[in-house]
Amino acid sequence: MVKESRKLSAKAQKFAAETPEDSYFEYFYDDAGAMPGTLSIPEDALPTEIELIDYRDVEAVRIPIEKPEDCIPYLDMASVSWVDVRGLGSEDILRRIGQVFHLHPLALEDVVNVPQRPKVEEYAEQIVLITRMVIANQDSEGFTSEQVSFVLGKNYLLTIQEEPKRDCFERVRERICQNKGSIRKHGPDYLAYALIDAIIDGFFPVLERYGELIEELEDEVVDKPTRQTLEKIHNVRRELLSLRRAIWPQRDAINTLIRDGSDMISPDVLIYLRDCYDHSVQILDMVETYRELASSLMDIYLSSVSNRMNEIMKVLTIISTIFIPLTFIVGVYGMNFNTEKSPYSMPELNWYWGYPLCWLIMLTIALSLLFYFWKRGWFENTQNLRR
Amino acid sequence: MVKESRKLSAKAQKFAAETPEDSYFEYFYDDAGAMPGTLSIPEDALPTEIELIDYRDVEAVRIPIEKPEDCIPYLDMASVSWVDVRGLGSEDILRRIGQVFHLHPLALEDVVNVPQRPKVEEYAEQIVLITRMVIANQDSEGFTSEQVSFVLGKNYLLTIQEEPKRDCFERVRERICQNKGSIRKHGPDYLAYALIDAIIDGFFPVLERYGELIEELEDEVVDKPTRQTLEKIHNVRRELLSLRRAIWPQRDAINTLIRDGSDMISPDVLIYLRDCYDHSVQILDMVETYRELASSLMDIYLSSVSNRMNEIMKVLTIISTIFIPLTFIVGVYGMNFNTEKSPYSMPELNWYWGYPLCWLIMLTIALSLLFYFWKRGWFENTQNLRR
Amino acid sequence: MVKESRKLSAKAQKFAAETPEDSYFEYFYDDAGAMPGTLSIPEDALPTEIELIDYRDVEAVRIPIEKPEDCIPYLDMASVSWVDVRGLGSEDILRRIGQVFHLHPLALEDVVNVPQRPKVEEYAEQIVLITRMVIANQDSEGFTSEQVSFVLGKNYLLTIQEEPKRDCFERVRERICQNKGSIRKHGPDYLAYALIDAIIDGFFPVLERYGELIEELEDEVVDKPTRQTLEKIHNVRRELLSLRRAIWPQRDAINTLIRDGSDMISPDVLIYLRDCYDHSVQILDMVETYRELASSLMDIYLSSVSNRMNEIMKVLTIISTIFIPLTFIVGVYGMNFNTEKSPYSMPELNWYWGYPLCWLIMLTIALSLLFYFWKRGWFENTQNLRR
Amino acid sequence: MVKESRKLSAKAQKFAAETPEDSYFEYFYDDAGAMPGTLSIPEDALPTEIELIDYRDVEAVRIPIEKPEDCIPYLDMASVSWVDVRGLGSEDILRRIGQVFHLHPLALEDVVNVPQRPKVEEYAEQIVLITRMVIANQDSEGFTSEQVSFVLGKNYLLTIQEEPKRDCFERVRERICQNKGSIRKHGPDYLAYALIDAIIDGFFPVLERYGELIEELEDEVVDKPTRQTLEKIHNVRRELLSLRRAIWPQRDAINTLIRDGSDMISPDVLIYLRDCYDHSVQILDMVETYRELASSLMDIYLSSVSNRMNEIMKVLTIISTIFIPLTFIVGVYGMNFNTEKSPYSMPELNWYWGYPLCWLIMLTIALSLLFYFWKRGWFENTQNLRR
Amino acid sequence: MVKESRKLSAKAQKFAAETPEDSYFEYFYDDAGAMPGTLSIPEDALPTEIELIDYRDVEAVRIPIEKPEDCIPYLDMASVSWVDVRGLGSEDILRRIGQVFHLHPLALEDVVNVPQRPKVEEYAEQIVLITRMVIANQDSEGFTSEQVSFVLGKNYLLTIQEEPKRDCFERVRERICQNKGSIRKHGPDYLAYALIDAIIDGFFPVLERYGELIEELEDEVVDKPTRQTLEKIHNVRRELLSLRRAIWPQRDAINTLIRDGSDMISPDVLIYLRDCYDHSVQILDMVETYRELASSLMDIYLSSVSNRMNEIMKVLTIISTIFIPLTFIVGVYGMNFNTEKSPYSMPELNWYWGYPLCWLIMLTIALSLLFYFWKRGWFENTQNLRR
Repeated sequence: MVKESRKLSAKAQKFAAETPEDSYFEYFYDDAGAMPGTLSIPEDALPTEIELIDYRDVEAVRIPIEKPEDCIPYLDMASVSWVDVRGLGSEDILRRIGQVFHLHPLALEDVVNVPQRPKVEEYAEQIVLITRMVIANQDSEGFTSEQVSFVLGKNYLLTIQEEPKRDCFERVRERICQNKGSIRKHGPDYLAYALIDAIIDGFFPVLERYGELIEELEDEVVDKPTRQTLEKIHNVRRELLSLRRAIWPQRDAINTLIRDGSDMISPDVLIYLRDCYDHSVQILDMVETYRELASSLMDIYLSSVSNRMNEIMKVLTIISTIFIPLTFIVGVYGMNFNTEKSPYSMPELNWYWGYPLCWLIMLTIALSLLFYFWKRGWFENTQNLRR
Repeated sequence: MVKESRKLSAKAQKFAAETPEDSYFEYFYDDAGAMPGTLSIPEDALPTEIELIDYRDVEAVRIPIEKPEDCIPYLDMASVSWVDVRGLGSEDILRRIGQVFHLHPLALEDVVNVPQRPKVEEYAEQIVLITRMVIANQDSEGFTSEQVSFVLGKNYLLTIQEEPKRDCFERVRERICQNKGSIRKHGPDYLAYALIDAIIDGFFPVLERYGELIEELEDEVVDKPTRQTLEKIHNVRRELLSLRRAIWPQRDAINTLIRDGSDMISPDVLIYLRDCYDHSVQILDMVETYRELASSLMDIYLSSVSNRMNEIMKVLTIISTIFIPLTFIVGVYGMNFNTEKSPYSMPELNWYWGYPLCWLIMLTIALSLLFYFWKRGWFENTQNLRR
Repeated sequence: MVKESRKLSAKAQKFAAETPEDSYFEYFYDDAGAMPGTLSIPEDALPTEIELIDYRDVEAVRIPIEKPEDCIPYLDMASVSWVDVRGLGSEDILRRIGQVFHLHPLALEDVVNVPQRPKVEEYAEQIVLITRMVIANQDSEGFTSEQVSFVLGKNYLLTIQEEPKRDCFERVRERICQNKGSIRKHGPDYLAYALIDAIIDGFFPVLERYGELIEELEDEVVDKPTRQTLEKIHNVRRELLSLRRAIWPQRDAINTLIRDGSDMISPDVLIYLRDCYDHSVQILDMVETYRELASSLMDIYLSSVSNRMNEIMKVLTIISTIFIPLTFIVGVYGMNFNTEKSPYSMPELNWYWGYPLCWLIMLTIALSLLFYFWKRGWFENTQNLRR
Repeated sequence: MVKESRKLSAKAQKFAAETPEDSYFEYFYDDAGAMPGTLSIPEDALPTEIELIDYRDVEAVRIPIEKPEDCIPYLDMASVSWVDVRGLGSEDILRRIGQVFHLHPLALEDVVNVPQRPKVEEYAEQIVLITRMVIANQDSEGFTSEQVSFVLGKNYLLTIQEEPKRDCFERVRERICQNKGSIRKHGPDYLAYALIDAIIDGFFPVLERYGELIEELEDEVVDKPTRQTLEKIHNVRRELLSLRRAIWPQRDAINTLIRDGSDMISPDVLIYLRDCYDHSVQILDMVETYRELASSLMDIYLSSVSNRMNEIMKVLTIISTIFIPLTFIVGVYGMNFNTEKSPYSMPELNWYWGYPLCWLIMLTIALSLLFYFWKRGWFENTQNLRR
Repeated sequence: MVKESRKLSAKAQKFAAETPEDSYFEYFYDDAGAMPGTLSIPEDALPTEIELIDYRDVEAVRIPIEKPEDCIPYLDMASVSWVDVRGLGSEDILRRIGQVFHLHPLALEDVVNVPQRPKVEEYAEQIVLITRMVIANQDSEGFTSEQVSFVLGKNYLLTIQEEPKRDCFERVRERICQNKGSIRKHGPDYLAYALIDAIIDGFFPVLERYGELIEELEDEVVDKPTRQTLEKIHNVRRELLSLRRAIWPQRDAINTLIRDGSDMISPDVLIYLRDCYDHSVQILDMVETYRELASSLMDIYLSSVSNRMNEIMKVLTIISTIFIPLTFIVGVYGMNFNTEKSPYSMPELNWYWGYPLCWLIMLTIALSLLFYFWKRGWFENTQNLRR
């Protein structure tokens, strides 16, 4: 068993290593024929932390939890309990979480074996919602994405996050602890809404970056298209494809939630979820728009490259076609005009500084042309052709 | 709180600054985890003005309103009250409008935090419709777009416009005040129809401009394609994409309105709305047609560029291949024909004006070729290559 | 009022002038905020003519009508009355037609303010069907299209045609007047079917032309692609797009008619309409096929242009690469072979006719090459580059 | 009437002439306004033959029929009668067939006025199914297609084939006459299934050819792309489009047959038809796959052409850029090295065979280059440029 | 009969031979008009092996079966019987299997005449599911695919695999025999789920390979695009198309299974199947993503080729345009500067080593340029142009 998890963790390691840099995720999969319910803990996964926020109208407590079983007393109370599990490092704790909350083995598998496609599954006593949270990288381009799973019960909400590091829930925690707005007056369904809304709203800043990037590329592609431009366009398309894969099923999951109208979600929270759904539609809308713009950029890139070739051909053609006939004429007469018959016949040949002057003129012409080509940026690409 | 609104207003400022020039809008979004119902007033938003038109069959009054609460007496009367709020500058007034009309917090948020995706939401006593109004710029190309929200109640209609400047409702106001047509005989649902119809009809002149622009580009792209042509085509595609994003959900919203048949809309107004829906379908139809034409223009552009390169290559090839063999032959004999053996052997070399004449011929050839290339427009692009 | 209609007529004039040449129609639109039911009569519209064909099993009369009110006695009879209104020139007559037939203001607007998107609207006592009729131009390429509206009542059929000139109903009129087939035995619903069928069948000859045009272009694009080919392909695509916009909603309208099964249409006429629907599906099928072929033609055009460039490059490369090394060798020795050391060293230089012969050879080569390029058609495009 | 049929037959002739060569069919259409039920017999249509196979469990007869009325005695018997009409040459016989089988005028029109779009129509006592049969040409590429119509009654099946020549029903006839399998134990619905299945299975060999053709083209397009390759790809795309137009509505028709579940088709035949439907889905699947591959081939073709141009440019550039500076240097010194100052200065000029040797070297270089270009196939395209 | 099966086996042989190398399958088809239920055994098919695993909660036996009839005693027991038939070589055994399990002739045909499109068919006592299993090749690229058919009865599961070689069921067999997990506690429906799940999970490693391949190609296409790159991209597209054809109908089949809810599948197995469905959606998702990336690669390839041509043109243009005017000037003076008038006039001509030095300089230049071009990789493609 150890061996298997080790092997799986290698794959997981690959994910952990690659996700931050290329933002492109492949879904998790079991070995063919593996038992359903197998949990695959990546070796380098950070240790699992649990935090509980228990609140009702008049008060709220926020405490770290050591053992999953410590949650049990809170679950039975009339208050709302938000159990936030962060990090998928400890199989033991995760299994005990599963027992405490009576999770279906398949649900536990979906929650732990990340990444999964966002979806909603309704069980007898619980609604399980798998979502994907994106966070724009602060120092570099691109974004990181992680899976956040929700298990909504009668009077509790269990959330499981892939990474313990950053999330976009801090302001919701504040709203509960500092009793801002009406969040304490509602049940766990409203809490779930608030968190889903935070996840959905987290897509906007990421998208806005791509909007700016596309605008920059629009200038770059017309002004000065290089090989790097091409790679940038390809990366934007790839990452937008990835974002689309994240938001598309998310939108469907929220819609299913609204349409199926479980009795665990009260009607006025449904109105809020509808708002959330509208936002996810807006995001999809923007993603599609950006993808169209990006693929239009590719067309422009291609035509800019053609245009440049056109310019180069023109320069070549102008200079060649002017000098070729002249050189022909010059060749015909070998310029052997008889200097004796006329003082106008090539007097330069008899000048004292004639030959050096001739070299000077030639050097001037050569350097001017080189300067002209350098100004046009012809030497730039030439240098990093092979990288 | 001030700080946050300042930050948001910076973004809003960006919108205000950019929308007129590039006509491309991104949806509004909250910070992740923000409370639902937060209003975000851009700092440079113009102050909010309120105008009330209250009418019934026999009379109509049109008065400016100072305080939102001043509307209340009119709302209870048997007459139809149209409260038109213009400009989103004053959070206080907008909040009080929300209280006077009992708006749901989410509805108020959608109305104030522009831009939103067009949609319709039915609440207990109200229908809230978010639409987008486009107005062709009068002096420049392109269009400006702003959000117009409708709140339809039993005997009133509340409209909230993003900008107090221009709108396309003036003729409806005239129809009410001068009692043209049957508008005074109907309720607020007919008024809502009349305004929606005005918004929808406002798309046509904008579209017609793009139709003309595409026709111009069709000529330009074949006759004389330049880098600017490419940018123009890209802009047209981008703006049509933007128009499509505005009209598509609008059509769906009107359709929802018709299909769901709220009892706040009377059956004969539904017939009128059906007409409105037909118009929005026509607009979408035209947008799609123009988009297809624009993307076909891109193909033609690319092939025109190829054609031009073809022409250039032909000129180069014709002149090179004619003179290269000749120059070879000339080289073979070094043109050292023995002038003594025959009077026909290069007599020019002994002419008195031979050498200057040779230069004259060469200059003539060079200038003719330069003139020919200039006539073909080869120097145009060359000059603004780097812009 | 006059001023407005003048303005509208200018737009209409534009349509009248452009439609025949580019076959591309934009939908009619009101000024934003205009009253519903406003009729916009283009100034150059031809005067309105009315013709009535009243028939029953045993007899048929065909008479021109002066005043719309003259129809009234016929409408109450047990016979079927077909009132055919041609030309939209007289607002007064059209309004009175509206009164005689109790048309809804919106229906009258759709009928008069052309062009509208084809559609079907069911009113209490009437079915209103808007269709588009295409007629292939007899002398030139392309087609003209006009709107034909049907108002089907209990025992009458009102048709309104945009232009009084040509239509495709003559054979139906013959069938009624000469009692061919069973048309007199049926009611106005069968008459409506017969006319719709005539309109649908009218699309086929237009399409067949495009089929032939595409076949011609297929040859042209491979054999001898020119700039004109490109324009022709673009025009075909544009006109097919326009045809598609005409037939697509028409098909939907007929389908709605069949599916909704009004009691104004008898079951056996429904079978005939089903046939009509099948034909409109066939047309759409062909339009889509032609569009695919036309866009495949564009690909071939581009690759033909590339191929030609390839050929040109080959000629240039072959001739250049052969002569360049030779010219180098020739240059090395300056061809100053010592004529005194060997009789084989350049004896030509001492020939009497050496120099003229050299010119003769060079002229021969130059002219042969020019002839070769001319045969290849290289000079054709070059000449009409600027048009 | 004669005149009209003559005109129609001209069109039909065109079809008859073109179909075998380009396999591309346009739908039949009436003149606009023509009476429904008009039959259009092409003049060159082959005479109509009728064959009757009448069978029950214990016996089967197969006899040619002279007059349609001769079928009547068989139709009333308890046995299953398959009346197979081949060739659409005789309007009189076809009309009488229509009377014998009580065909609806529209059904008769669909059966006779070929080609029609495949479809199924249910009448009171009959199901009419229009299908398209494709047969791969035996000697040449491509396929011929013809319309086969089925009229399924209580105890008979009427099939009408467009051409009397080849069909794919021979093995079914054998199965009936030699009592293979269970076909004699079933009714006419099973017979209809068996024939439809034969038609559907007939698409596979045609498709397999295209599969092979695409594989050949995949090699050709990378190895040695010529103008012919381009035309072949275009033809494959065109013919696949045509196949798709034939199989798509056929699939829908079979699906309608299964879904609507007429009582003329017994439940266990429905299971067989479901199998038939699966096959038509498989065919559509393969057609779509081939179309994607063919359009991917076009991309490769274009890039192969670009690659070749690249090769040509490289050769040109390598040779030019090497010799151009050398020629410059050679020119500088005019190679007038003083032969008197040094024995190493151009001794070749004084050799006895110097000049002839120089020509020999030049000829060798020129011929080697020509041989190299010929080996690369550069002369191939050049020769059939104009065809 | 022998002859026919020989002919069919030739085709089958072709499949057997080609499938491993190009992974691209065409569907099986009968000769037109063949009897339904005909089995087509390829000649080279491996002999049929049967294995039976019979288990209940407390025990499990795994035994090879000689004759199909030997299964009968196990089928009646209260235990679950899994009959696994591997290899389609023996028509006799397959027919007897059909009799033992009362398979419908069409079901037997689908199971034996591979490949079929994945689908589910419900019969009175059985559910027949056709699936496609893919296994990544261990030593080479690509994958092999084979058909696996499931026949699910009340207390047995019959699986028929195309090839006896490898499958992905070994771990399921272990789970049964070693009583891992809860598999022995469930019925044959759970067993079917476990096997389908293994098949679905088998797609992931294959897909992962394509993911890696696309990433490699992304680097290759920008760095060093060759003709082989183009072929690789085309192959990836082709194989992804093939994978899509395998997984698309599989997903639909599983969905049908869930939606139609046969009573042979218990509700808690349905939950597991839903999970299976989610995985097949994930696979389709990844396939579509990879296909988009691959077609974007094609664009990049094309533009990389253009870029390279650009580089080549630049080199040519820079060197040509610099030297052409210089050569002209050199030509003008024929470099006949009078060495007597000035010591600066071409003293090199009188040097002792002048001529050899001149050759040395020229050789140096030529070799440097050749080295430069070789470094850029210009000679690589040139060599394998013709392959």
